[in-house]
Amino acid sequence: MPASAAFPVGDDLPDFDAVVAALGRIGPHLATTPVVRSPAFDAACGRRVYLKCENLQHGGAFKFRGALNALLQRPAAERVSAVATHSSGNHGTALALAARALGLRCQVVMPEDASRTKLQAVRDAGAEVRLCAPGLAAREAALARWLEESPAHLVHPFDDARVIAGQGTAALELLCEVPALEVVAVPVGGGGLLAGTALAVRGAQPGCQVIGAEPALADDAFRSFQKGRREALSGSPATLADGLRGSIGARNFTLMLRLVDAMVTVSEPQIVAAMRLTLQHFRMLIEPSSAVAVAAALQGSLGAPGQHVGIVVSGGNLDLLQCPFLAGPSSAAEARA
Amino acid sequence: MPASAAFPVGDDLPDFDAVVAALGRIGPHLATTPVVRSPAFDAACGRRVYLKCENLQHGGAFKFRGALNALLQRPAAERVSAVATHSSGNHGTALALAARALGLRCQVVMPEDASRTKLQAVRDAGAEVRLCAPGLAAREAALARWLEESPAHLVHPFDDARVIAGQGTAALELLCEVPALEVVAVPVGGGGLLAGTALAVRGAQPGCQVIGAEPALADDAFRSFQKGRREALSGSPATLADGLRGSIGARNFTLMLRLVDAMVTVSEPQIVAAMRLTLQHFRMLIEPSSAVAVAAALQGSLGAPGQHVGIVVSGGNLDLLQCPFLAGPSSAAEARA
Repeated sequence: MPASAAFPVGDDLPDFDAVVAALGRIGPHLATTPVVRSPAFDAACGRRVYLKCENLQHGGAFKFRGALNALLQRPAAERVSAVATHSSGNHGTALALAARALGLRCQVVMPEDASRTKLQAVRDAGAEVRLCAPGLAAREAALARWLEESPAHLVHPFDDARVIAGQGTAALELLCEVPALEVVAVPVGGGGLLAGTALAVRGAQPGCQVIGAEPALADDAFRSFQKGRREALSGSPATLADGLRGSIGARNFTLMLRLVDAMVTVSEPQIVAAMRLTLQHFRMLIEPSSAVAVAAALQGSLGAPGQHVGIVVSGGNLDLLQCPFLAGPSSAAEARA
Repeated sequence: MPASAAFPVGDDLPDFDAVVAALGRIGPHLATTPVVRSPAFDAACGRRVYLKCENLQHGGAFKFRGALNALLQRPAAERVSAVATHSSGNHGTALALAARALGLRCQVVMPEDASRTKLQAVRDAGAEVRLCAPGLAAREAALARWLEESPAHLVHPFDDARVIAGQGTAALELLCEVPALEVVAVPVGGGGLLAGTALAVRGAQPGCQVIGAEPALADDAFRSFQKGRREALSGSPATLADGLRGSIGARNFTLMLRLVDAMVTVSEPQIVAAMRLTLQHFRMLIEPSSAVAVAAALQGSLGAPGQHVGIVVSGGNLDLLQCPFLAGPSSAAEARA
């Protein structure tokens, strides 16, 4: 794929040291997210499963890590006063929160099919939002037009070395807490979390496997991994996992080929079942994108029986109205409130 | 009320130093539970609210703190090989987990109206369970009979100085993380969490208010506080908050009169609304007992507008089947699984 005008693809790839440096840089500003376990959930998976709860991170997703790491390294010479990105929601909220903390304005392009809850969250975090048609091409075009009117420092949601290094800090924290992990798995959309996680795991615990999980309906990274060449999704796939509807980024594809052990896919019913079981056993409502990696554990795709498996629960932002198993006469009214 | 044979009421009351010592003793074995915030929830309450997530503690409730603190101080001369208690569920699970870690057997008397999920959790944690009629008198009688057959070291669910000190460690951690708190609120059943919290707050942040919240349907501690004399509930009240159906313990009543600033009550619909809003804004499903203190924040009973208010979310164990706003064709089947 050609590089877009807005986001030229460079050959700068982050390394393990960049992840360690990122944690030192952003650590004081992070929420301390717990690692949780459930014996009943372990039994359902046949593995010892450790969930790193980035759904409890600032902004309700791991994305705050990469966004803040990028903004703390913004080029001094540019005298940045505004930042911009496109996002399905979580990166937009994260960038807006990080920008607000640093006294910067924030512009976010979002697709029209974005989760209503995420759209509200991006606005509540202080960003100016413009909507566009779904799909990466439309998003980048809308952002390019906006930048012509109103220049800003770009922070790509996943294809940026600073963002990738920041996202890797979640797995680094997880490994520091649970050094015995034999597998670490994460969901894959643009691949920033996967690439950062792979850097962290290879550096901190080289014998530990790294596995990426995708919805079968948006399996571009899975296919790219099998074929050894980057394939893109066309349009916006109909998966419930709204955070994973994009194609894997150039840097993340390169790091995936070098560092990742396996890619797996799960079905939409498996995603819903994983959301339900996470609610049942951990009492946490996680977003469908996060449930993709949990579903991979439940279907037995992560490591061998009895192994220690870590999963980064990427986020918890979803529309309660669209959750398939929430109901009751007043829930709709409350969700609208 | 007279002391029962099983649990003689002594005059040993824990103090702030006992809470500090408890944290040192149990700290290495605790889950690190986060403190979470939500701007939207703050707006709904008109206060800056900090939730200390003991629903993510081992066993899904703060009770592990008190149970472990008690067992780590079991009398060496007794050569304890078994421990026993009565419990609506969370203390039973906590004691069983602590006992298992120390290689001890565990016997738990539970009321027949206990949450099915909690009953299963107590058994899964390795305890032997006997059921009895609801109400404190029936529980204590059943436990006394069992102890005649099979002697064991008693750890009362709330009226035990070691348990009270252990429960106070949650608020101590909360204050260490958020020293600016002006109010700390907790739900009140037997009062162990309230008494421990009051000790922690008075010692660590004397100017901070301590408030206990009860269901209006089980308001014995509220009435006892107003009248200055201990009043008991008769039977088992019909509140959804299954963890708060007991009456306040003797030691906890004494500490409440000395150290607590206010008691408030909430209605059953307010409890359900608080559960929904916690799910909506924090993506956590909390048990009705925990929602009692959250409901007090929502009704404006905790401190003044704009103040920093901390709440210990006491637990997350509930039957999904009995949750008023969960539905869907397969949720019942999954909850039964």
